[in-house]
Amino acid sequence: MGEKAVSNKMIVLKDYVKGSPKESDMLLKTSAVELRVPDGCHNAVLVKNLYLSCDPYMRTRMHKIEGSYAQSYEPGSPIVGYGVCRVVDSSDPNFKNGDLIWGLTGWEEYSLIKSTEGLFKIEHTDVPLSYYTGILGMPGTTAYCGFYEVCSPKKGDTVFISAASGAVGQLVGQFAKLFGCYVVGSAGSKDKVDLLKNKFCFDDAFNYKEEPDLNAALKRCFPNGIDIYFENVGGKMLDAVLGNMNMKGRIAVCGMISQYNNLEEPEGVKNLLCLVLKRVRMEGFIVVDYYHLYPKYLEMVLPLIKQGKITYVEDVAEGLESAPSALVGLFSGRNVGKQVVVVARE
Amino acid sequence: MGEKAVSNKMIVLKDYVKGSPKESDMLLKTSAVELRVPDGCHNAVLVKNLYLSCDPYMRTRMHKIEGSYAQSYEPGSPIVGYGVCRVVDSSDPNFKNGDLIWGLTGWEEYSLIKSTEGLFKIEHTDVPLSYYTGILGMPGTTAYCGFYEVCSPKKGDTVFISAASGAVGQLVGQFAKLFGCYVVGSAGSKDKVDLLKNKFCFDDAFNYKEEPDLNAALKRCFPNGIDIYFENVGGKMLDAVLGNMNMKGRIAVCGMISQYNNLEEPEGVKNLLCLVLKRVRMEGFIVVDYYHLYPKYLEMVLPLIKQGKITYVEDVAEGLESAPSALVGLFSGRNVGKQVVVVARE
Repeated sequence: MGEKAVSNKMIVLKDYVKGSPKESDMLLKTSAVELRVPDGCHNAVLVKNLYLSCDPYMRTRMHKIEGSYAQSYEPGSPIVGYGVCRVVDSSDPNFKNGDLIWGLTGWEEYSLIKSTEGLFKIEHTDVPLSYYTGILGMPGTTAYCGFYEVCSPKKGDTVFISAASGAVGQLVGQFAKLFGCYVVGSAGSKDKVDLLKNKFCFDDAFNYKEEPDLNAALKRCFPNGIDIYFENVGGKMLDAVLGNMNMKGRIAVCGMISQYNNLEEPEGVKNLLCLVLKRVRMEGFIVVDYYHLYPKYLEMVLPLIKQGKITYVEDVAEGLESAPSALVGLFSGRNVGKQVVVVARE
Repeated sequence: MGEKAVSNKMIVLKDYVKGSPKESDMLLKTSAVELRVPDGCHNAVLVKNLYLSCDPYMRTRMHKIEGSYAQSYEPGSPIVGYGVCRVVDSSDPNFKNGDLIWGLTGWEEYSLIKSTEGLFKIEHTDVPLSYYTGILGMPGTTAYCGFYEVCSPKKGDTVFISAASGAVGQLVGQFAKLFGCYVVGSAGSKDKVDLLKNKFCFDDAFNYKEEPDLNAALKRCFPNGIDIYFENVGGKMLDAVLGNMNMKGRIAVCGMISQYNNLEEPEGVKNLLCLVLKRVRMEGFIVVDYYHLYPKYLEMVLPLIKQGKITYVEDVAEGLESAPSALVGLFSGRNVGKQVVVVARE
């Protein structure tokens, strides 16, 4: 260990994952790190990680996958994900010691981020810092661009959101309500359905696990059909939704969590002919194509948070040690609201 | 029979069709018709049908289907489809005796078209009249709006077209070539593949029936991936294409002929997660939303035809009696090029 070296706990991926991820697919390791940016490493920052974000797309990086927007994780190396961090040392003049940032970091106590490109400086600290893993970070921007840019909403549109109590879903629903849409969400437990109806003020919600017939559930909630589907789950739900879409409907494909544990043999979706019969547009998107809108989004959402017009629910796990369990829990739907891991509070 | 009544042969649908349509699902009947628009019937025309168009979408109308752009045919009534007709009598001041028109008409010798809305007057007769069932009619406009409006093409894009020798496919491919794209098509016989390569000047083509692995065939033709897929077939081909799409690729869903004979239990498409991973837009469309572009399209395509810069291949069946066999042949791929039925030459 050099003079400034400290111990650094980290969560590493053991090997590529098949099927449902398990806590044992990850390992807590302790290494050492010098709390400074190495010489010759330009535009880098060494950060202390405060909050880490658990997001469904991370499952796809645990798989050996090609041609995706995200590269596979490297077995033996720390998991990579969004987080909120404090800069400890910097070789980039735009970031200085003490700055708070959010962006992609490692699942460890301290990380050397070798390129500051893609990091966002946190300017507003009169809101909980952890929000920058969610409503004020990647998932919030995803909800914003997915709804306003991809869904092409009109006032009065009927909007259906699956996985609606998750980080993105809860926000899409509230944005859609504020926009003047009729909003229904699905989730996987009674508690989550209550949250959707009572806390996020959705017009209606149902527990997909208790509906013997998803098509019938959608027909009950949308007697006049669905104009917009914000797709987070894929599989059977997508099939049922396709049959209930309205003419010129729009499907923003944000994710397909139901398929992530079975990437080798995903479920077949049968009702795609509805795309033609109803002239439906179905569009996959990812937030990195829309980060130029982040300042505009903050301008909109910060006042809404402060005025209490938007509610945001987090599920907080304490300590880096709890991160594997928190991540794995996403795929059984154990989290209620946005899953965050606290590594350190400051 | 009244004074002006003549005999009127017609092809009627016996009953809703399940599975592959057969000639015996249709019946030749003879009725009588007066060659004038009945009193009190405003904005109607009585026409003599000259050329009838056989189009894959017609299969969906033979099925009892709800929520489609097209209504089911009525068992006992003549099949309805696009055709080229001569006006015999008119109660609409915009159409007069002798005018040539194209639009939706009945599969019979004479039809009373009760609303002239949706009929197009034929102004250019220095091209074969039958072309108004294809390149100068609905399929041509479909190819035009599908390619230019839905596919958002850029010069140099790689374009794949399934059912590429059909009425729409052969035109999309030629438009894409003229636009500066790299164009590959699939079809179901050696003759059709030769047509694609030698007559329509596609860069490459393959016979999907002789490819044991569609994914490998696509990788061979598109080592750098597919930017645009013009989708006419659905099912396994769509799955293979999804896995070969490039980032920000576009899929214009024009039809899914492989699924039309199995509407109750369509094939599952498994690779939809690619929509997210590659940010792909997949959009169903139908030509009726784009008919306002028809004059602009004619302006483009008429000179191309006259200068020989576009080739157009028809498969012509003689006589109304041959219409059921011609229509049924679409679904086994028997036709080479656009399937037309000649009822009368003038």
